[in-house]
This record gives sequence, structure tokens and C-alpha cells, in this order.
Amino acid sequence: MARNSSHSTGLRVQLPLLCFLLQAAIIILFSFFVQYNHETDSALWHHSNHSALDNDFYFRYPSFQDVHTMIFIGFGFLMTFLQRYGFSSIGFNFLLSAFSLQWSTLVQGFLHSFHEGKIYIGVESMINADFCTGAVLISFGAVLGKTSPVQLLLMSLLEVTLFGVNEFILLNLLGVKDAGGSMTIHTFGAYFGLVVSRVLYRSHLDKSKHREGSVYHSDLFAMIGTIFLWIFWPSFNSAPTNTGDGQHRTALNTYYSLGASTLSTFALSALLSREGKLDMPILESKFKVQDTCGVHNLHGMPGVLGALLGALVAGLATHQTYGDGLESVFPLIAEGHRSATSQAVYQLFGLFATLVLASLGGGIGGLLLRLPCLSSPPDSQCYEDQIYWEVPLEHEDEVQEHLRSEDTETQA
Amino acid sequence: MARNSSHSTGLRVQLPLLCFLLQAAIIILFSFFVQYNHETDSALWHHSNHSALDNDFYFRYPSFQDVHTMIFIGFGFLMTFLQRYGFSSIGFNFLLSAFSLQWSTLVQGFLHSFHEGKIYIGVESMINADFCTGAVLISFGAVLGKTSPVQLLLMSLLEVTLFGVNEFILLNLLGVKDAGGSMTIHTFGAYFGLVVSRVLYRSHLDKSKHREGSVYHSDLFAMIGTIFLWIFWPSFNSAPTNTGDGQHRTALNTYYSLGASTLSTFALSALLSREGKLDMPILESKFKVQDTCGVHNLHGMPGVLGALLGALVAGLATHQTYGDGLESVFPLIAEGHRSATSQAVYQLFGLFATLVLASLGGGIGGLLLRLPCLSSPPDSQCYEDQIYWEVPLEHEDEVQEHLRSEDTETQA
Amino acid sequence: MARNSSHSTGLRVQLPLLCFLLQAAIIILFSFFVQYNHETDSALWHHSNHSALDNDFYFRYPSFQDVHTMIFIGFGFLMTFLQRYGFSSIGFNFLLSAFSLQWSTLVQGFLHSFHEGKIYIGVESMINADFCTGAVLISFGAVLGKTSPVQLLLMSLLEVTLFGVNEFILLNLLGVKDAGGSMTIHTFGAYFGLVVSRVLYRSHLDKSKHREGSVYHSDLFAMIGTIFLWIFWPSFNSAPTNTGDGQHRTALNTYYSLGASTLSTFALSALLSREGKLDMPILESKFKVQDTCGVHNLHGMPGVLGALLGALVAGLATHQTYGDGLESVFPLIAEGHRSATSQAVYQLFGLFATLVLASLGGGIGGLLLRLPCLSSPPDSQCYEDQIYWEVPLEHEDEVQEHLRSEDTETQA
Repeated sequence: MARNSSHSTGLRVQLPLLCFLLQAAIIILFSFFVQYNHETDSALWHHSNHSALDNDFYFRYPSFQDVHTMIFIGFGFLMTFLQRYGFSSIGFNFLLSAFSLQWSTLVQGFLHSFHEGKIYIGVESMINADFCTGAVLISFGAVLGKTSPVQLLLMSLLEVTLFGVNEFILLNLLGVKDAGGSMTIHTFGAYFGLVVSRVLYRSHLDKSKHREGSVYHSDLFAMIGTIFLWIFWPSFNSAPTNTGDGQHRTALNTYYSLGASTLSTFALSALLSREGKLDMPILESKFKVQDTCGVHNLHGMPGVLGALLGALVAGLATHQTYGDGLESVFPLIAEGHRSATSQAVYQLFGLFATLVLASLGGGIGGLLLRLPCLSSPPDSQCYEDQIYWEVPLEHEDEVQEHLRSEDTETQA
Repeated sequence: MARNSSHSTGLRVQLPLLCFLLQAAIIILFSFFVQYNHETDSALWHHSNHSALDNDFYFRYPSFQDVHTMIFIGFGFLMTFLQRYGFSSIGFNFLLSAFSLQWSTLVQGFLHSFHEGKIYIGVESMINADFCTGAVLISFGAVLGKTSPVQLLLMSLLEVTLFGVNEFILLNLLGVKDAGGSMTIHTFGAYFGLVVSRVLYRSHLDKSKHREGSVYHSDLFAMIGTIFLWIFWPSFNSAPTNTGDGQHRTALNTYYSLGASTLSTFALSALLSREGKLDMPILESKFKVQDTCGVHNLHGMPGVLGALLGALVAGLATHQTYGDGLESVFPLIAEGHRSATSQAVYQLFGLFATLVLASLGGGIGGLLLRLPCLSSPPDSQCYEDQIYWEVPLEHEDEVQEHLRSEDTETQA
Repeated sequence: MARNSSHSTGLRVQLPLLCFLLQAAIIILFSFFVQYNHETDSALWHHSNHSALDNDFYFRYPSFQDVHTMIFIGFGFLMTFLQRYGFSSIGFNFLLSAFSLQWSTLVQGFLHSFHEGKIYIGVESMINADFCTGAVLISFGAVLGKTSPVQLLLMSLLEVTLFGVNEFILLNLLGVKDAGGSMTIHTFGAYFGLVVSRVLYRSHLDKSKHREGSVYHSDLFAMIGTIFLWIFWPSFNSAPTNTGDGQHRTALNTYYSLGASTLSTFALSALLSREGKLDMPILESKFKVQDTCGVHNLHGMPGVLGALLGALVAGLATHQTYGDGLESVFPLIAEGHRSATSQAVYQLFGLFATLVLASLGGGIGGLLLRLPCLSSPPDSQCYEDQIYWEVPLEHEDEVQEHLRSEDTETQA
């Protein structure tokens, strides 16, 4: 039966081969190029006789751990709402993240912090690696259930690379500020994934329709992911900002914004839903991606909106509001290199560049994933753990029963 | 059928209206009164040329995030033990918290830190807002399953306000120390909720008896909440205390006290339960509130006990024990304004005031919630997600089946 | 029926008695010997007029809380994969941890920090207590499902004591460095537990075979544990290391090592498993201990490997690599008391000592647990919550049904 064949999903040969190749390449590149920075290298740190307190570790590690929880628990469990796809949601989330965090350290290192042939790493590298992984997981949400792990790894390889390029263009070339990763993470991740999903369009996906729903307990698992993403969002936004008032203010703003958004979401959910009932998935269903508009609503539109607001804020920035802090928020304005209006235009151009790069990248990614040598799950086996995982018997039985009843229906 | 009618729970009109009104009021009040404090405002912070390290953010944010996890994951999942009420437990917990943290920032700001017409906020505001939310969630535990989200929001509106008043009386007027929130959080939240529950007493609640139990996996979800509450309790108690030895000592004491309590709880559970078996809910069942004694045991009694011990400790406070640290623990004693005995009397009076205010407030709150215009779930539909939420089909089918069998029984 | 008899598991009398005795002994010993250290004692801290920032709390508490999450959520949920043993896995994990963290504070205090008749405690005591608890939980994994809580508590009493002795020999007598607890935690915990399990060998354990499997949702609960253990491993390894570059470097190394290991694990899982499918338990099944090789693979072998690598690293340590930091990593080499080679030999001897002590201790522990007065679950009731816990009716019904069908089979 095709359903049980490992060939159809490339697990037997392609996946191990790809994993080993990628990991070997990473190890070789790390050994040639990656070095401890002055805060993680024993000799360098002790040489300059710092107080332990000055080490960036104490300013950023607690926030990093919250971000790390969001990536692995938050995104991982968020996607468990599908009734038969919990293992894959968590497992592939795990696999893609483990790869992306390593690969993005190299890509970001080459592009942002390559000094005299070396990449110097510390806690900020970890935060940035997790951020890039976040963008990959947003795209993962757009193709969830319809792609094999081999396809997903290749998508990540491409996306991480282009993420680095886009970030380089925005932050280094255009001098754009990207608070909360509106453009580099949310907009880029969403539209890259949406275009991939578009290129992979399946006209007969309705054959897997019955597996797209959730079950009671799968929704509770998804709530674990949802809430961890929600509670640690202040850490996500504040982890990379300037120490002192910057981190503090960002965390505070995110905290109250989330509260206000939640109340509004409940109101809208009750107002708009059938029979006036609340829809648990309304908080998380945005990731239901058969029509992929989920990712669009949850990351694409908010990312674009955030970018537009960012441009507006830049256009209104004055010395009066920020005082001497303007230097750390909009240094180019503070130093007189740009007017506030000019900064706003650059912000808008950054958004435009992001949309272009994400769309082109997603298009190339989608075509890559359609290569005939890469098998993908058949239309009738989407959203199904059993083609990838050893599923405990109890559940497997149910699946078999379901498949038998389908067969009978088809014959009738 | 009444069961499916949104009218009966006020979801279609009352909930969206109330949410929008409350959120609009909050936004207007925030825009008029709330300002960044000197540690979150860019101009103020940079003006005084601080070291980033001095920012209170680094002393309190990690503890805050633990508290935040307790509020949303801890309380949220703790209440999922009911077999058909997981969505509501987590969802309403989410809604009430998102509202309460905003509203309490305003109430506490007006009462505690209103300077020249402005409320200045920072990480301590977030901790205090989460603490007040904790009291609301304790009360929520006492009425869980028997109240609509509209009723719960109104209860929160009143309770947050009175919580602020009570805190003002205790901390500002009486000069009382309230370690771990024994009085302001646990005692206040428990008795407020218990009195509300009493006023809302339903003589025919046995019609929903069959939904009060747990199922195997719902108990495991509840354990997620229980354990997150347990492990982060040291952060909860130490988050607001004085920096340095104060936070350190409080976390340490809580850590060892929890260990000792757990061993004793297991012993008592084995000793007292039927057939000598351990009762998983024994660790969490305190929140089962058909008889509401749950909240009484878990927060009410311990809160009162903690308050009495606090009075005892105050009465025994000497310069010898605390050294120069007495200033930060009992400043009024250290500065000679009060004797230790006098402080103890004030502590007792604080407990008395808390009990009076919680009872009066709960009484008013209960009467408010009985207003005819506020619909509440019928006796036969308590502890049931389906009247509020779109429940996945699988589970809904089970419910329908159950209801059909009930009908048959009734007719027979 | 024997199955429902509390006598058979010692819950009615032995468990409460043992809990009360142990807790009473702990309280008495704490009151005689345990004191706040200079960072938690109000008088001592304020006397020396420190800046709040210098308090070790701010260097270690966030990492401690991650470790604490690993112990209670990580280990607790990791072991929920068994279909009928979720309450016991989480509950006994809770009980053993609550006891071990207290007892190990005393044992480690007497052996490591006993000054003028007193044990002085602070945040490092909490971290060390949680570490020792980790070793106990590794051993718990080796006997999971086959031992009563009374047996487990006695095992913990012995293991915590010997853990302290082993640590004393390695760190104080041999001057060994034990990065990440390779020897003291992983190797010791694994081989202690494996020898206990060996001594308790049951030839008829196949009678409980049908309960050893997982079910779909139990595997998802186990993933909660697995992922929390994974994401917080950098905190686990860095929590006790030297402040500054030491903590920073350790967290960084662990982060990237975990990424690389995960990619390799997926590759191996796909390569080796039946039909080329991934095996969800492959990430966690190491804890399936009917053959106990699980703990061996997950902690025993890696612990030994880590110890050997540690010896290698010590043998290659030079001033050139570490600079002035050598003092904090290998002080005996830096101060000229030992050559690098000599340090390497000591490291190897430390591993040998750990294996000997763990095996002897496990042997004694196993014999202790076989004492006739200690009842253990019958062969046919292993991996079964129902003999210890009040299980919700729904699940209990299933169990009864299963038992009835077994009876019928036996009769036929």
C-alpha cells in the first residue's frame, strides 16, 4: 500500500542523507569560521578584567530562554490542533528549528559579523538564530500537513539564507528599524510561506478534509502553545533591544498591547461567530492553512501593519520625545544624517524590499519543492501522522477503521 | 433548544458590547493618565545617565515572567480538570486576566502612585497587575462553571477595584506588611469569591452533576497547571520584595516550604483517602467548587493562617534578628514609630479589614450578577463548554448522545 | 481483590508513616543546622553594605528556575508516555523531588559547606539540591512502574546520601571537574538505577506487557516533558558554572550541541526504524525501562562519554587556550599543582569511582527494596495507576473491562 510506503515520503533514504549532509556541512563551517566572542571566550574576557555583571549574558539570557520556549513549545504545540498530526507538528517543528538555528548562525554571521575571516558568537547569536527560526516556523504553518520533512528541510535551507539577505538589506543597507521583527520575521515568514503554499497548490486536497478538524483534547494541547506564545511575547520583543530603558519599555508596551488585543479578539469572536458562540480555534485557527489565509491574518497583515506604523513613528520622531535616547532608537536621525521624514521613507522601502524578496524566495522555494525527485504526501494522506511516525496501536486502529470505511464508500 | 441559544449566555450582544466598552474606557484612561516612569521613558532614563544595570527591569523581569506563567498557564490549566469545561477554563481565565491586568494598572495607579495627575508605570506595575489578577482568578475558581463570561467580567471589574481599595487601606493607611500576598491576594480573593458563590447559590445544581467529574487526560492537563503554580511560587513571593537579600531569602524560604508541604500532603492524602489510595485531585481538587470549600481550603484558610503568622513574626521582630535589614522589612519599627507589638496589632487589624471588605464586596458582586438582565447558564448546563464554544464534532457528538440518553431517562 | 488492596502497595500505613518520619527528621535537622548565608541573611547582607546587584541571586536565579522546570515538568511529563501510568509518573516524580531537594540540602551541606556546626544556604543550595534530585529521577526512570512509592522514597533516601558522598570524593578529594554533571548526575544516576532495577528483576513482567505501550495523547504529554528538558538544558549546564564568561560559554555550547544532536537523531531514527518511519518515542523511549536499557542509552553511556571527553579536554588544557581563565576552569593546573596530563588521570579516576559507588549503592538499594516488609506491585499490576490513585471513572471502567476480558481469556 502506498500509504505505508516509506518511499513515498522519502524517509528511508532522502531524510537521513539530507540530515547528515547538512549537519556535516554545518560542523565543518563552524570549525573553520565560528569563534567565541569576547564575552564567551575565557582568555578574552579575563584579559580585559570585566566585572561578571557586565557580561551581556545577564542582560539577555532570561529573555532568550523565553524566546526559546516560544519556538519549541509555543510554535510546536500551537500546531497540534489537527486531530491526526500532533507528532508531525511537534516533531517537524523540532527538526526544522534544530537545523535553522545552526544554519542561521552561519548565514547571519557571514552577513552581519564577519571580522577577519571569523564569526564571533554569544547570547545575541542565540537570540538572532531563534528569531530566524521563528520566521521559518511561520512559513511551516502555511504548508503544514502537505509537505514531507525532506521538503521542509530544503525550504528551511533556502528561507534561512534569504532571511539573512533580507535582514542585511534592511538593517545594514537601508538603516531601517524593525521593532518586534514586523518586517524581517512576520512579514517575511508569512509571505515566503504563502507563496510556497501557492506554488504547491493541490486541487484535490479535499480528500484529506476529514483530517483537518481538531478534536477536544488536541485543541487543549494547542492552547498550551498559544498561551506560551502569548505570555512570552514581551520577552520576544524586548530580547534584542537596547539594554536599560529600551528593553524595559518594549516589554511593558507589549504586555499592555496584548491585554487590549485579547479583549478585542474575544469581542469580535463572539460578535462574528455562528450562533454567537466563541470559537476556541479563533485564537489559534489562524494557523489552519488549507486556505493558508491563516498565516496571512496572524503574521502577514499584522507584520505589514506593524511596518507601516513603524514608518509613521519614525516620521514623527523628535528630540523632544526621546531626549538623549533618540540616539539609541533612531541613530541616523539623532546624528543628523537623516530627517525624520526621510527615515520614514526608508522604512517603507524596507517593507517593499521584504515583500519582494519573500515572494521571489517563496516562488523559487515552491518550485524547488516540486522537483520530481522529492516525494510529497499524496492528496489523501495529508494531515496524517501515520505516514511518517510509528503511531501507537490504539490510534492506528482508528485510522485503519476509518480507511476501511472510506474504501467501502468508494466502492459503493 | 435553550441549550444552543446564544441568548441564554449573553454571548451574541452583551459580551461584545461589554468587552468593547471596557477596552475603550481603558484606552481613554490610559491615554490621559498613564506615563512611562523614569526607568521606561527614554528621555528620563538617558537624562540621568544611569548604568543599564541599575534598571529595575533586570531585578524583576525574570520573576515577573514566572508570575505571568502562573497566571495564564498555571491557573488556566489548573481548572481544566472538569471533563467538559477545558475551553471555558482556559478561555475565560484568559479573558478575565487580559481585562484585569489592564484595569488593575489603572486602579492601583490612581490609589498608589498618582503624582501630579499621572500614573507612572514600569515592571512593578506589571507584577502588581498580575498579582491582582491572581486574586480575581482565585474568585473565578469559586464560581467556575456556573457563571457566564459577562457575569465574570463584571465580577472582575468590581473585584479589581475593591482589591485596590483593600490594598490601599492595608499598605498605605495601616502600614501593614503582607508577605506573599496572604491577605491582599489569597484571603481577599478567596472570601470575595466564596461570598459571590454563596449569593449565587443554586439548589438544583445536581442537574449538572455528571459533568463535574474529571477524566483521565483532563487530570493530566490540570497537572500542568498545578506544577507550574508550584514551581514558580518562589518567584511569585519574591517578585515584589526588596532587592538583594530580600528577594533571595523569600525565594529560598518558599522553595523549602513547598518541599515540606508536599511531603506532608502526600502523607495526609494516603492516610485519609478511601482504601488508602492517593487522590490526584487531592493536589488540585481544592478548586472543585460545587461546595466551594475548595477555594476556602486552598487560599482562604492558608491566607488567614499566613496573616496570623505574619502578625506573630511582626510581634517578635527585633533589631538583633534583622540587623540593619529591619529598616526594609518593618520600617515603622526600625524608625521607632511603632513597637513590635503595636505592629502585630496593626497586622491583625489588616486581616480583619480584608475579611470585611471581601465579604461586603462579594455580597454586592453576587447581587450584581443576579440582575435579571444578566443571563447565566441553566442548572442543567453548568460545567459545559458547548454553550459557549464551538466544540469539535467528535466531542459534541458525545454530548448529544449523553443528552439523548438523559431525555430517555426522564421520559421513562 | 488483591488489585484494589491498599495493603499490597503499603499506601495506607507505610507511606504516611515514612513521609511524616522523613519530614519530621528534616525539620529537626534544618532547625539545628541550617542558616541563611551572607546573601540571604538580612543582618549579614546589610552589615557589609553590598549593592543589591552583587547578590548571587541575580546571577543564578533565572537559570535555577529553568532547572526547576526541568525537574518537575520535564522529568514529570517525560514519563507520562505509559498509557495507564500518567498520575504515578507525575505524582511520584513530585513526591521524590519534594523529598530529595530537602534531604540533599542537608547531605550536601554536611559534606561541602559545614562551617562551625552550621550549613549556610542560598540560591546555589537550591541549584545543587535540584541537580541531586535530577540524579534520583534518572534512577526513577529505570524502575518506573515496578516499584511502590514507599520503595521509591527509600531508594531516594539512600541515593541522595551516596550522591553527596560521590560528589565529595570527586570534587573535594580528587579535584575533578565535572562539566554538566556527566559523572555525578548522569553516570551516577543511571548506573545506580540500573543496578537497582537488575536486583529487582521480575521474570514474569510480561503479565503487564499490555500496559507498557503508549497511546496517542500520552505521547503528546510526554513531548511536553521532552521539549522542556531540551530547551532548558543550556540553563542546566550553565547554572552552577563560574559567573561571567563561564556561564555564557556553557549555555552557548549546550545550545549548539543540542541542535546538532537533534538533526543526527532524526537521521538515525529514519535510517534505523522499521519501514523508514520516524518513531516518536525514539526521542523519549530511552526511558522505557522494562529492559531498562533506556536509561543506559540516555544517561549512562552519554555520561561516561562526557566524562571521557572531559578527561581529554583536561589533558589538552593550556594557558594559551584559556588565558587567565584557566584559573577558573582548571585551577589546579593554573596554579601549577598538577600537569594537564595528571588532571586527565584524576578525571578518569573520578569516573571509575563514580561507577563503583553507583553500582555498590544500587546493589544495596535493590536489596533494601526487596525486604519482605516492603510490598511492591504484583507482576500483573505494573505500569498501572489504579493501584495507587483514585482514577476517574471513565478510565477505570476501561481498565475493569480490560481485566474482565483478561479473566475470560485465562479461563478459556
